[in-house]
Amino acid sequence: MFKVNDNYQKLPGSYLFSTVGRKTNAFMAAHPEKKIIRLSIGDVTQPIAPAIIEAMHRAVDEMGKAETFHGYAPELGYEFLRSAIAKQDYRARGCQIEEDEIFVSDGAKSDSANIQELFAAENRIAVCDPVYPVYVDSNVMAGRTGVYDPSTERWSNVIYMPCVMENGFVPQLPEETPDLIYLCLPNNPTGTTIKKHQLQEWVDYANRTGAVIIYDAAYEAYISQEDVAHSIYECDGAKTCAIELKSFSKNAGFTGLRLGYAVVPKELKCGEVSLNAMWARRHGTKFNGAPYIVQRAGEAVYSEEGRAQLKKQVAYYMENAAVIREGLKAAGYTVFGGVDAPYIWMKTPGNMTSWEFFDELLEHANVVGTPGSGFGPSGEGYFRLTAFGSHENTRAALERIKSM
Amino acid sequence: MFKVNDNYQKLPGSYLFSTVGRKTNAFMAAHPEKKIIRLSIGDVTQPIAPAIIEAMHRAVDEMGKAETFHGYAPELGYEFLRSAIAKQDYRARGCQIEEDEIFVSDGAKSDSANIQELFAAENRIAVCDPVYPVYVDSNVMAGRTGVYDPSTERWSNVIYMPCVMENGFVPQLPEETPDLIYLCLPNNPTGTTIKKHQLQEWVDYANRTGAVIIYDAAYEAYISQEDVAHSIYECDGAKTCAIELKSFSKNAGFTGLRLGYAVVPKELKCGEVSLNAMWARRHGTKFNGAPYIVQRAGEAVYSEEGRAQLKKQVAYYMENAAVIREGLKAAGYTVFGGVDAPYIWMKTPGNMTSWEFFDELLEHANVVGTPGSGFGPSGEGYFRLTAFGSHENTRAALERIKSM
Repeated sequence: MFKVNDNYQKLPGSYLFSTVGRKTNAFMAAHPEKKIIRLSIGDVTQPIAPAIIEAMHRAVDEMGKAETFHGYAPELGYEFLRSAIAKQDYRARGCQIEEDEIFVSDGAKSDSANIQELFAAENRIAVCDPVYPVYVDSNVMAGRTGVYDPSTERWSNVIYMPCVMENGFVPQLPEETPDLIYLCLPNNPTGTTIKKHQLQEWVDYANRTGAVIIYDAAYEAYISQEDVAHSIYECDGAKTCAIELKSFSKNAGFTGLRLGYAVVPKELKCGEVSLNAMWARRHGTKFNGAPYIVQRAGEAVYSEEGRAQLKKQVAYYMENAAVIREGLKAAGYTVFGGVDAPYIWMKTPGNMTSWEFFDELLEHANVVGTPGSGFGPSGEGYFRLTAFGSHENTRAALERIKSM
Repeated sequence: MFKVNDNYQKLPGSYLFSTVGRKTNAFMAAHPEKKIIRLSIGDVTQPIAPAIIEAMHRAVDEMGKAETFHGYAPELGYEFLRSAIAKQDYRARGCQIEEDEIFVSDGAKSDSANIQELFAAENRIAVCDPVYPVYVDSNVMAGRTGVYDPSTERWSNVIYMPCVMENGFVPQLPEETPDLIYLCLPNNPTGTTIKKHQLQEWVDYANRTGAVIIYDAAYEAYISQEDVAHSIYECDGAKTCAIELKSFSKNAGFTGLRLGYAVVPKELKCGEVSLNAMWARRHGTKFNGAPYIVQRAGEAVYSEEGRAQLKKQVAYYMENAAVIREGLKAAGYTVFGGVDAPYIWMKTPGNMTSWEFFDELLEHANVVGTPGSGFGPSGEGYFRLTAFGSHENTRAALERIKSM
């Protein structure tokens, strides 16, 4: 008689966005005359840039002719895309990353969930709190997290690194030594980041203790400050301790196109065992490549036209971020993030809980945001707004909040 | 200090197609004047059908406009695609499969590799021999297969079901009881299949012993005989014991577009635990949907135009299958498959090994095929040719083989 993987049953329900949706729908049903503005989920709203649309049309046409049809893709991704990535995302920044250290995937969510497979079941993970839930949940499914305590909302075998106002949202080196450290910088959900010299401390710590950093750089395109690293490989020694995950979802609006990549350096080893070779084996066994059309779309992201168009797209969202940040400040709120990331993280006023503020905002401003407590216990008392709306909606939302 | 997942180190090298490639390249370098014909790998060669190309162009245009842009897809896949699948692949055949039992994915390879995650580590798998390597390798990575014996090419904790000429390539109910049974029908690599009443025996066996059948139906579109099931759910009781995996790669040429789906019936349970709910949780945690454009392409597969065009495409490849099958028979070879599948499985002549025949065919006919031994020890003495070439190449290859 077959048995199921019991680890799945340990997962607590995933209620954050479903509760946001349920409460929003209930409000809309009760107040059909109100126009709701959603600044809640992290999905983009601007259309795919023209240079990328053109590249996809060309690729679709190629797929329709026998002489230019493309079947199974090369296992690591097409060379045209991997070489553009290696050149522009890395070598142009002085990071010596080679094409065969880059693995094209169907997105950073898949990669960030799958990467833990390379590690032993007894390895211990460290995560920031609040955090993107996939890091922890994928390790729960693999049996790596121990027992869940609903009263603390924490797993017994996970090392938590609180990121709160008091420490400037900068994770501190943990007292217990982890084997795997998940860092998302610039951060989702807090919208904050750390300086390059602070990231260097993490790299040094990982090399000193023999830990691997899983570095999620999905929001790299939003960095505006000069002394913030765009890649962890800008830090000395990162190639012996870090895997970097990148997404095309936020810099190019590919949430519905699905493209990402992982960098697994050849220097990253456990004894003689190469993690690059292991990830190549996983890629070859459990994945069959991103679609040709989408890889050509990815290539267009790096074209001169594509870059110019996407620079404007990022600027569009960052204008929203400034509107939200400055608007909230003017209204007397304490606000973080939104400088190097498309997320604004605010302190809820007057010791309200995250969900109390959610209700308040929905009722009085008809604006939907995301309760910080949904990302972890240290998110309690905070609230996330995203810059991915339209200018019109974002401005209107802030006017309403200001007049609350 | 981090440790790696040691199971990866147990995997023997994956040399089949790399050795095929190396030997082919060496021959070409030595004989630059010879024109090689490849009937080796299972990749399609016909372009994507016009109705699907049109659907993709429309979807690309939608992605370029704010009012029709699509971001993150629904977790199980778009309703337009799941309802087309439920209606045409299942309810039209009398199988009561609902939309929420269908999970759209980036292909059957990913699904067939990932599905084992739902099961306990101590569960024991049964596979046909020869077999598609992903079933076993994904279980090796999960630590489910015991110790590899290079002399027998077998894992200590895997139940093998030899499929050879002597049993008509029909797997026999195993003596030891497995928890998970992988069946690929019509079969890759043998190109053979079983009748519906024989499949019903497997369903009854699984229900009787409490096993789950992972049913890979990637080649279903090639079935030509009347008494062969197109879905395992045509068998009574399959919804309490079977997961079905489907691909768009072979019926619609999507090898480079990446689309598939898994059916996990709600009746499939371990005690109170629903595998449907578990797979939904995995989908939501570790995957972010197939691209909108590709899901629209999938929808076009089910349109009237699309179906007519794809019927011709399948017939095109099956004409190749007939040419190979009849040509080999006329040349005196013993031949199987090619009636309900795009693969022809031949006995090597005169007790040659699979690799000896590979060399012979390459040298004297300049035709590349796949040695059967690469799919498992019971494939020794067999050889696979695929029907996925062009008519011209396929005919030319057979003329050369006949005059060998």
